[in-house]
Amino acid sequence: MRVVITGASGFVGNGLARHLCVQPDALGRPISRLVLADLGAAEASLAGHDIVEWRCGDLTDPAYLDLLLDEPVDCLFHLASLPGSLAEREPDLGWSVNLTAPFELARRLGRQGRLTGRPPRVVFASTIAVYGPLGPESASEYNVARPAISYGAHKLMTEILLADLSRRGEVDARSIRLPGIVARPATESGHGSAFMSLLFYKAATGEPYVCPVAQEATAWWMSLPCCVSNLVHAARLDSARLPARRVWQLPVLHARVGEVVEALGRRYGAGNVGQIAFEPNEAIESLFGRFPPIVTPEALAFGFMADADTDALVAMVMGD
Amino acid sequence: MRVVITGASGFVGNGLARHLCVQPDALGRPISRLVLADLGAAEASLAGHDIVEWRCGDLTDPAYLDLLLDEPVDCLFHLASLPGSLAEREPDLGWSVNLTAPFELARRLGRQGRLTGRPPRVVFASTIAVYGPLGPESASEYNVARPAISYGAHKLMTEILLADLSRRGEVDARSIRLPGIVARPATESGHGSAFMSLLFYKAATGEPYVCPVAQEATAWWMSLPCCVSNLVHAARLDSARLPARRVWQLPVLHARVGEVVEALGRRYGAGNVGQIAFEPNEAIESLFGRFPPIVTPEALAFGFMADADTDALVAMVMGD
Repeated sequence: MRVVITGASGFVGNGLARHLCVQPDALGRPISRLVLADLGAAEASLAGHDIVEWRCGDLTDPAYLDLLLDEPVDCLFHLASLPGSLAEREPDLGWSVNLTAPFELARRLGRQGRLTGRPPRVVFASTIAVYGPLGPESASEYNVARPAISYGAHKLMTEILLADLSRRGEVDARSIRLPGIVARPATESGHGSAFMSLLFYKAATGEPYVCPVAQEATAWWMSLPCCVSNLVHAARLDSARLPARRVWQLPVLHARVGEVVEALGRRYGAGNVGQIAFEPNEAIESLFGRFPPIVTPEALAFGFMADADTDALVAMVMGD
Repeated sequence: MRVVITGASGFVGNGLARHLCVQPDALGRPISRLVLADLGAAEASLAGHDIVEWRCGDLTDPAYLDLLLDEPVDCLFHLASLPGSLAEREPDLGWSVNLTAPFELARRLGRQGRLTGRPPRVVFASTIAVYGPLGPESASEYNVARPAISYGAHKLMTEILLADLSRRGEVDARSIRLPGIVARPATESGHGSAFMSLLFYKAATGEPYVCPVAQEATAWWMSLPCCVSNLVHAARLDSARLPARRVWQLPVLHARVGEVVEALGRRYGAGNVGQIAFEPNEAIESLFGRFPPIVTPEALAFGFMADADTDALVAMVMGD
C-alpha cells in the first residue's frame, strides 16, 4: 500500500514514520511506498529504508499537492500544521497552512476516491484546542466545541469537512483529537504548551527551569509512542463500523504538573527535579493548565488508548 | 449606514430588502445605501427606493466580491446559498457557493475590519441542517451538530469561521440557524422541504396536491415576516453582550403537517384543503418530517422569536 505522511519532519510525524519503517505491516497490509512530506527532510531522514521517499515542498502550493498525490494513495496521515500560538500571531499563514491546505488536500483525495471508487483513508491529527475553555467539572468527548484560538477553529472545520466527504464516499476519514504530546524537542517553537515537554528535558539534565504554570496546574498528557499507536489504530479501524461523525477524542492521562514532576523525580532523582521552579503565568495557565478530567467511553470502546499513569508516561517518553 | 444583502433576489433576501426599504431605520441608524447582491435583480426590484443599489454578479468570482465591498460596509446579511438538495447533486457548485464564497466574503470583511478598526456586522443565515438526524426526544439549541448533508456541513463551518474572526475583532458576526421558512414561491427549486410551502399555495387556490409526508409528520416552521424580524434583531444585538460562539438556534413553531393543514382549512375552507392528499415518501419524511420539539432558552433570552401558533403562522404567511 502507498502511504503518505504530511508533517513528516515534525515530532509526531517523524515518530510515526520511524514506527512504520520498523513495522511496515503495521497498517494491516505491507507498505510498498512511504511518501514523507514536509518543508524539508528531518534529521532522522530514514534514508536506509527502501520504502521511504521524501517529497519536500509547501502544502500551501497547489502544484506541490498535485505532485504529492500523483499516484493513488491508500492512506494519508495529515499531521502538518502551524502551531496554535504561531497561528495567532500570523493569521494569514495560519489560514493557509491550517485551513486551505487540508481543504485542498481533502478535495484532491476525494477526487481520487471518486475516480478510483476506492476512497483513500485519511487519518487527521485534530486537537483538544477545538473545545475552547473547559469548566472545572469533568469534560466528555461529546463536549460542544467552542475553539478559542484559530488553530482549534481550523482543525474543527477540517474535521467537519472530512466527515462530510466520508459520508459522500469520497474519502474514508478518521479524525483524532490529540492532547499535549510529550516530549517535543525544545527547538520546536510556537507551542504555548512547550512547558509540558521542557519539564522532561530539564529533569533529565538537571538544568534549572522556571515552569510557567503551578504544580497544581492540570493538563492532558500523552507520550509519543502512545500517540503513534493511536494514529496507527485509527488507520486500521474497520470502515464498516465507523460513526458518521468520524471524530474521536483520544483518551488522555489527566495529571497535575506536580505529579509528573514527582514521577520524573523517581526516574532522575530529587536533585534534578529540585532545579525546577514554578512561576505561574496566567495567560499560559488559563490556556494550558486548567484541564478538567475527561471521559471518553466511545474512544475507549473503539480501542484507543492513554498512557496508564505518570510513571508509565515518563518511561514511554524516555524510551525506557 | 451602508448595508449589503447577498441573495437579495431570494425569498428571504428579498423579504428583508423590502422590509429595510420601508423601515430604513430598522437597524438602529438610518440606512444611506442598501446594496443588493444576487445573480440577477429580483422582480420586486425596489427600483423606486433611493437607497437601493443592485450590484448583480456571482459570489464565487473574487473580482465581484471586490466590487461588492469596494466601500466599507457597516452590516452585511449573508443569505445567498445553493439549496441543500441541489448542493448534494452538484457538489462542486455547492462547495463554491456554500463554502468558499462565504469564506472569501468573511476574509474581505475581516480585512476591512482590521484596516478601519470597525469590524463590520455580519448576519449569517445558517440552518437547522447543521444538526443532522435528530432523535424523537426533545432537542435543544445545544445539540451537537452532525450534519448529514454538505449544505449543513458548509454552513456549520462558516459559523465557526465567523465566530473565530469575531473573537479576533475582525468582524462582528451573528449566525442564526433558520428552520423551514414559508411560503417559498413554488418556482424556487432545490429545497427538499418544498412541501412545507406548497401546502400554503395549494390550500389558497384549492388545487389538488399530493403531499410527500404524512399528516403526522412534524416540522419546524417560521413565517417570512418572523424570519425577517429575527434577521433584523440579530443585526441589532449589542456587540458587548454576545457569547463567544455567536450562534443562535432560532425558536421555532414545532407543528405537525396536519395541524398546519387544519389552520389552512380554517382560513380557506375545508373544501380547499380537502384536495390535499398524503403519500409519504420515506426519503423526504426522514429528512424533513421527523423534527422533535426543540427548546431554545438562550435564543429566547436574547430576544429571538417564533410564530405563536399555526393560525398565527398562516395569518403571517398570507399577509392577513
